[in-house]
Amino acid sequence: MDNTQKPSGMPIHKYRPYHEQLHVDLPDRTWPDKRITTAPRWCAVDLRDGNQALIDPMSPERKRIMFELLVGMGYKEIEVGFPSASQTDFDFVRQLIEEDLIPEDVTIQVLTQARAHLIERTYESIAGAKRAIVHLYNSTSVLQREVVFRTDKQGVIDIALEGARLCREFEKRIPETQVFYEYSPESYTGTELEFAADVCNQVIEVFEPTPERKVIINLPATVEMAGPNVYADSIEWMSRHLAHRENVILSLHPHNDRGTAIAAAELGYMAGADRIEGCLFGNGERTGNVDLVALGINLLTQGIDPQIDFSDIDQVKRTAEYCNQLPVPERSPWAGDLVFTAFSGSHQDAIKKGFEAMEARAAASGVSVDEIEWSVPYLPIDPKDLGRSYEAVIRVNSQSGKGGVAYLLRSDHALDLPRKLQIEFSGVVQAKTDAEGGELTSEQIWNIFTDEYLPSTSSDEKWGRFELLRTRTQSDLSGNVSLDVTLRDGDGTEDVSGVGNGPIAAFLAILQGRGFDISLYDYVEHTLSAGGDAQAAAYVELQVDGERLWGVGIDGDISTASLKAVVSCVNRAIRTRPRTATLAAV
Amino acid sequence: MDNTQKPSGMPIHKYRPYHEQLHVDLPDRTWPDKRITTAPRWCAVDLRDGNQALIDPMSPERKRIMFELLVGMGYKEIEVGFPSASQTDFDFVRQLIEEDLIPEDVTIQVLTQARAHLIERTYESIAGAKRAIVHLYNSTSVLQREVVFRTDKQGVIDIALEGARLCREFEKRIPETQVFYEYSPESYTGTELEFAADVCNQVIEVFEPTPERKVIINLPATVEMAGPNVYADSIEWMSRHLAHRENVILSLHPHNDRGTAIAAAELGYMAGADRIEGCLFGNGERTGNVDLVALGINLLTQGIDPQIDFSDIDQVKRTAEYCNQLPVPERSPWAGDLVFTAFSGSHQDAIKKGFEAMEARAAASGVSVDEIEWSVPYLPIDPKDLGRSYEAVIRVNSQSGKGGVAYLLRSDHALDLPRKLQIEFSGVVQAKTDAEGGELTSEQIWNIFTDEYLPSTSSDEKWGRFELLRTRTQSDLSGNVSLDVTLRDGDGTEDVSGVGNGPIAAFLAILQGRGFDISLYDYVEHTLSAGGDAQAAAYVELQVDGERLWGVGIDGDISTASLKAVVSCVNRAIRTRPRTATLAAV
Repeated sequence: MDNTQKPSGMPIHKYRPYHEQLHVDLPDRTWPDKRITTAPRWCAVDLRDGNQALIDPMSPERKRIMFELLVGMGYKEIEVGFPSASQTDFDFVRQLIEEDLIPEDVTIQVLTQARAHLIERTYESIAGAKRAIVHLYNSTSVLQREVVFRTDKQGVIDIALEGARLCREFEKRIPETQVFYEYSPESYTGTELEFAADVCNQVIEVFEPTPERKVIINLPATVEMAGPNVYADSIEWMSRHLAHRENVILSLHPHNDRGTAIAAAELGYMAGADRIEGCLFGNGERTGNVDLVALGINLLTQGIDPQIDFSDIDQVKRTAEYCNQLPVPERSPWAGDLVFTAFSGSHQDAIKKGFEAMEARAAASGVSVDEIEWSVPYLPIDPKDLGRSYEAVIRVNSQSGKGGVAYLLRSDHALDLPRKLQIEFSGVVQAKTDAEGGELTSEQIWNIFTDEYLPSTSSDEKWGRFELLRTRTQSDLSGNVSLDVTLRDGDGTEDVSGVGNGPIAAFLAILQGRGFDISLYDYVEHTLSAGGDAQAAAYVELQVDGERLWGVGIDGDISTASLKAVVSCVNRAIRTRPRTATLAAV
Repeated sequence: MDNTQKPSGMPIHKYRPYHEQLHVDLPDRTWPDKRITTAPRWCAVDLRDGNQALIDPMSPERKRIMFELLVGMGYKEIEVGFPSASQTDFDFVRQLIEEDLIPEDVTIQVLTQARAHLIERTYESIAGAKRAIVHLYNSTSVLQREVVFRTDKQGVIDIALEGARLCREFEKRIPETQVFYEYSPESYTGTELEFAADVCNQVIEVFEPTPERKVIINLPATVEMAGPNVYADSIEWMSRHLAHRENVILSLHPHNDRGTAIAAAELGYMAGADRIEGCLFGNGERTGNVDLVALGINLLTQGIDPQIDFSDIDQVKRTAEYCNQLPVPERSPWAGDLVFTAFSGSHQDAIKKGFEAMEARAAASGVSVDEIEWSVPYLPIDPKDLGRSYEAVIRVNSQSGKGGVAYLLRSDHALDLPRKLQIEFSGVVQAKTDAEGGELTSEQIWNIFTDEYLPSTSSDEKWGRFELLRTRTQSDLSGNVSLDVTLRDGDGTEDVSGVGNGPIAAFLAILQGRGFDISLYDYVEHTLSAGGDAQAAAYVELQVDGERLWGVGIDGDISTASLKAVVSCVNRAIRTRPRTATLAAV
């Protein structure tokens, strides 16, 4: 079996291997023999590096929520902004200080370029703080020296040293604040190692670190240009060549351009680093910073305390999604929606046997299952430890083998169910499957769906208590809509009217008038195909007399579809409740 | 600055370090000194491992599209299914063979467990193929031996050998097919190395590999249980201990539980592997398989031909998203929506200077810029080489420092613009900013938005040719909606009627009657807050006389909002077109 792969025609002539650009040689490396045994010092940079890479940068409110999340999880060093470059960041730092929002054991960190007016402004921002890390940076790479700064090595050293000296000067203006320093040779991965060490060592001399006041030297993979082992080699080399190493906290800041930032952080930490900067779920410029959640939980799975609380990962995820306005991907390590879901029957079987074996083992030892070692196939962590649960998704195989329930509804009926409704409906389907056994056809699934959510199509069969017979909405564009409907209620028919700022509001008012305690939670609508003459499907999530559930309506008219969805939901609520409650609601 | 991190209370007692469970010791490892110089043999498992982990497994049509995508990109070994476990997979394999869809130089691969009836069925599925790889597996880990199979090492060896022998038997039934073998000790990362080598070596003897008919030994990180360096050590150890190594193709199959699958694949390849199995964009069980796109393009950036065509990465992404019905994350390496976007001013400046320097260098050498080495800060690859473009997103800083345009519209006006409309509107804003200079307040952004999309609020000012004054829709629930509107057209007002299966269709019919060539492309709608009395915003993308653009409508009535959006769009189309075209349309 020969390898039949062919040249791709991709322009490889434009790219030169990293090792031809920069030399990182460390044949006597020791890091591959090392093992991680304790958590590094963490620094969360979500409010700076993460924030600067958002489509919608965080508002002050979102910043505050992110800060409180990070503090609550246990992060003690938090880069809160680039106050000299952004008024929002400046104001946020002032707010943290003036409103006394920084806990005793938390240190804020602020970034500044090595330029005089920016440094001055930075010190203004942190005045009054009990403690702060001033994070000074300038770019040192071969490429940036050449094309951006048009200067030589000495020029770059001068920028760094001038910046460091200015820091020492401005530090005197805020004697009540304990200032610590971090220096980053930005674009470190594009810098000759000897030169990076030279710059850092000269800066270290200016900062005069002591055991009580160590200096942080942060070596960013500003752009991830080579494999994680090369980064680790470079970190071990630097660790050996930094002056006053005992008073230096060696910090990593890996970006994820090649998709290997987590590995770079772990191998770099093995190579002698003390500290890691990153963001929750790997937010940050381009492909992001290293993912602090993955790094922390990776430690936990090795029995090492991450010193960070991940016990409610969904809450962390929701909050980060709210602050960043970016979703955490379905397959994000330890946190994605799908990472504790088993679809395959053989996986589900093995997992089930794993759970049973753990229970038997615990029982035999007379302890609870939470006291013994976790060992379940395909689940490298107990989802419960992260506040999650293991989900076995039973595949409903139609005879045609076309796939899952949501897919069949979409492909055969163009219905795109909201995820929460998918979950509600899969429960309905599983109840039917368990009752009847065997595989389900697409038609059977559709029958279960229509039975549950849609009115009966046969005219002699009534579906639920209510039915819409006619609707009329009228808008004078003043903001109010009047709705007239002909409604079947049980065996009777009547004409009723309501007013609201839209048809759903008007209809809910009509139903409230009939004794229902009803409110709208979610509303999703889509057309069933392209083109102006399509049908529309509407999905509403209502709370009806204390019960939260979904309804579905389909109609050519968008607003009629939404009214039908309300009817669907209310009918389901009445159907599922105990008989006495039904009577009470009438 | 002391480290103030505290114990988290996470249940570390439940987890034992990997090295205490399994021994991987290789102090004389050589892989850290190796460099990758050529592409590995690739095997794409999207249609098997990827597909089995989908919420909605692929339909036959989606499978076919994925197969064609993989073939078109240049993958030559494609695992197309698990035909003995799934009728859909079986039918798909038959379709590929019977419809002669497999190119001459492509080899399909089918997975089977080492069980007699499954193996028999597997051979039935590949009958008639010119060539196929039968991929045999059984689980070998300590944990699965104990809790799933309840057998000892010999029991597991027997399963593997019996399976391999049956393969050799059934192979005789299809003499016209050239059968190759792959064997996987599943859950390899949970298996003692010596035992994994023992099983593999005994299986190798059954398969009797020759230089012309090598056997693939695939060592999956079924669950990623340790760092990528540990996986690499194990691969180098196995490579040294496999029998007939010269006739073995050593294959990797890394999963991404710890987020280090890309690193594991790269370091494992350096450690002696020949072949890598993975999925586009890292689809697959739980956190996914290793991402073939990242691995391939990582090679390209080092001047190594991936032997795979990534020149239209957006097309690859769209197709994968369609087949998997899962989005590719915004920060996915080399392919995410945000990976070539620079938000920071200093990054944008450096990138601009990088482009200028490249142009100057090319001009000085008398060659085109595509012939010289790529070197632009913060862009580790030329986005053009992937069919992408570099985007500098100019931050529109409001005085309040609240952030971007989309954010301000959402936070201050509750409008959640579809992404395509965000892009359209950012062009409108940038045109204004360039013309007027300076920062924009949230109010100014809102003014630009209303100027562009919404009718004038002052009653003496007319906005565009059309205006809705009154609407009435009526539905008899027969599927047709009749729409009556009072419409201002220029200076006149008239009552017009239309019929369609929904209000938009009815309204488009009215406008078509007035000479517009108009069709609907996209329609998105949302309420502006929770509760039944909310306003709704509707966004429509229309093609009006050949021009594609968006319109926006806001109203308490969902269907009125959608009609207003149509008016907004048509008015914009008339406004932006040359005068002669306007006349032609009237």
